[in-house]
Amino acid sequence: MIASAKVAGAVANRIHQPSVFGEILIGLLLGPTLLNVLGWPVFAPGGDREAAPLLPLIRDLAQIGVLLLMFVAGLETDLVQMRRVGKVAFWSAFGGVALPMIGGAATAVAFGLPLYWQGIFIGAILTATSVSISAQTLMEIGALKSPEGSTILGAAVIDDVMGIIVLSLVVALANASSAGMNWLALGIVALRVTIFFVAGIAAARFLTPMLRWASQLGVSQAVLAAALVVLFVYSWAAEYIGSVAAITGAYLAGVLVAQTEFKREVDAGIHPLTYSMFVPLFFISIGLQANGRELGPRAMFTIVLVLVAVVAKAIGCGVCARLFGFSTKASVRVGIGMISRGEVGLIVAGYGLANGLIGTDVFSASVVMVLATTMVTPPLMRLVFPPHEFTVTPVEETIVGPPEEGEPYPTTR
Amino acid sequence: MIASAKVAGAVANRIHQPSVFGEILIGLLLGPTLLNVLGWPVFAPGGDREAAPLLPLIRDLAQIGVLLLMFVAGLETDLVQMRRVGKVAFWSAFGGVALPMIGGAATAVAFGLPLYWQGIFIGAILTATSVSISAQTLMEIGALKSPEGSTILGAAVIDDVMGIIVLSLVVALANASSAGMNWLALGIVALRVTIFFVAGIAAARFLTPMLRWASQLGVSQAVLAAALVVLFVYSWAAEYIGSVAAITGAYLAGVLVAQTEFKREVDAGIHPLTYSMFVPLFFISIGLQANGRELGPRAMFTIVLVLVAVVAKAIGCGVCARLFGFSTKASVRVGIGMISRGEVGLIVAGYGLANGLIGTDVFSASVVMVLATTMVTPPLMRLVFPPHEFTVTPVEETIVGPPEEGEPYPTTR
Repeated sequence: MIASAKVAGAVANRIHQPSVFGEILIGLLLGPTLLNVLGWPVFAPGGDREAAPLLPLIRDLAQIGVLLLMFVAGLETDLVQMRRVGKVAFWSAFGGVALPMIGGAATAVAFGLPLYWQGIFIGAILTATSVSISAQTLMEIGALKSPEGSTILGAAVIDDVMGIIVLSLVVALANASSAGMNWLALGIVALRVTIFFVAGIAAARFLTPMLRWASQLGVSQAVLAAALVVLFVYSWAAEYIGSVAAITGAYLAGVLVAQTEFKREVDAGIHPLTYSMFVPLFFISIGLQANGRELGPRAMFTIVLVLVAVVAKAIGCGVCARLFGFSTKASVRVGIGMISRGEVGLIVAGYGLANGLIGTDVFSASVVMVLATTMVTPPLMRLVFPPHEFTVTPVEETIVGPPEEGEPYPTTR
Repeated sequence: MIASAKVAGAVANRIHQPSVFGEILIGLLLGPTLLNVLGWPVFAPGGDREAAPLLPLIRDLAQIGVLLLMFVAGLETDLVQMRRVGKVAFWSAFGGVALPMIGGAATAVAFGLPLYWQGIFIGAILTATSVSISAQTLMEIGALKSPEGSTILGAAVIDDVMGIIVLSLVVALANASSAGMNWLALGIVALRVTIFFVAGIAAARFLTPMLRWASQLGVSQAVLAAALVVLFVYSWAAEYIGSVAAITGAYLAGVLVAQTEFKREVDAGIHPLTYSMFVPLFFISIGLQANGRELGPRAMFTIVLVLVAVVAKAIGCGVCARLFGFSTKASVRVGIGMISRGEVGLIVAGYGLANGLIGTDVFSASVVMVLATTMVTPPLMRLVFPPHEFTVTPVEETIVGPPEEGEPYPTTR
């Protein structure tokens, strides 16, 4: 699975798709949608096609992978840059979170799904833009440093945080609802969420002394081990104390560790095995858990969901950009540039599946939605960012200009 | 668990024990022997003290950790140095493998356990010396570069390989035995072992091209991912094709990857998360799986096993060293220096427990044996390596002289 994920990622790169796209797609092909490898005799002893003894292990590793991934995302969140982002980017991000949220919930209700909590959860899956995909395409187009480009990047970063906040609220409210959804239950959940965030952020003052102490222990990899302990404790506390998702805790832990002097050491230590083992297994497991064959009865829902994901994000971001001072042309570019969804949407969908908030059918539709939005974003962006406007000012990155019509796109490496 | 392992390792270092010692001991204290943390309400929902939902996950992670650990051991096996090791070291290692093997099996039989395969397996657990513990103590004594010191180190390295070979033979024979133990079954197993090793070593010629190809894929951590694929494929093939233990395959994969130009990159990438997460969980899980309370009826057996482990290793190594040219005094030193057991013994014992070759009682006795041999080695070595002989020639490493009588030993860092 690791091999197929990496090779598929490389193939996707060759055809100018992000490697995430290839990794999810190959997972989908290996899963019950097409090959159902986990049912092969070599994996299922005794030829029992239903028993898939590997799946629980892969699911566990993928879950740890998700925590590691969100921790790294937190580590790499640049709080300083976020504060510097202009109000256009902030409100674009806001519009691009609110409208897909409402659109997703409305779509679910229109197709007969209950608003609480399946509908609202589907809305939450549609919120977060993928920073990496937008950045990659902007780089290939040569528009990374344009006002639209930097607005898209800034908005995509804020968007991740907003996505996490939306997820936290939805999970907390769903928890309150399972406890009766009266004012008392709501009050208790609100209190728990507050306690988690206040205590979690207040505890950050002990991070630097703790990591410094670990660095002097003299045992192997003590700083990284301490960071992992922080990651797992915050993840645990997010669920058990804060009644929000564990990934919220992992992300918060990453953001807080990034403020210490050990950020580089932790980042460098956690990257290799995370990106060589856990993350490929996570993307493959997404495909393994999805089942395209179940989409038959949900074909219409899936198509509408993809359309809503594309249109709501583009309009939500675009209109807000227009309202806060961008020209119509630039606003359309910002809206289009924010369409792609990625890891965070899948992580949210995986959380919903694991906790019974959505079924396999909705999960599979979400996977298709992520693949489709990722696929349409680069060509749509090339349409609204005309080459002649953006080749004139090459910037310091290894940016290549757009190729001639009909020529293969050069790689950015 | 990661936190307790690392802190216990650091405490062990302070009192001049290897950190492994602290990590196993804390696992034993956290396990059913004393605290039984996995039965605590916070881990066992509903207060069910028997249900320990974390244990399968920890066991899975520990198993992956064992494969990673053996892979790293293989990576760091210096084939060039092994070929240069003198015949004294080679035959000392041989004696130190053969005698504990026989002694362990005889002890088992004396206590009413069947020779096949429990007795022979107990023998196999006693074979491998821990390189790291011997090296650490030699360094503290200042005798690392003495003839005895380099013989101990050389023998300890060869010893690991012999331990792996013994384990492979025992597992293969046990597999043949479960298939009826006739000549046909034996022949098939012999053929499978041969095919695995011949094909595995022959396939090594494709390693460099494959890793080079991976390094040009352009996706994140592709070389490390390829090395992991090699590791897991060899581990799988060891069991399913070679009818030997998966750890044999992991070790072989490490030795073969070490011959390529990517050794450093793989080693550097695999170290951080392995030593911060997987290895501490492995050592803790050893303690969690053991149960000191079961040792009551096996108290006599455990004591005798520890004595046999100490005496058989010392005599086996010492007599062979004497036979191949060392003085009696030097031979005693070599024998004493080889007593400590470590990771490999525990990995072998864990394999036996997981595959039903030994019960929890024998497993717990083996854990006590590893702890006891580790604990007695440093003081015994200080007894036979008198300080006045070894302080005169400090070598280039950060070696500290032996302390004054009654003074605390200084750390080597």
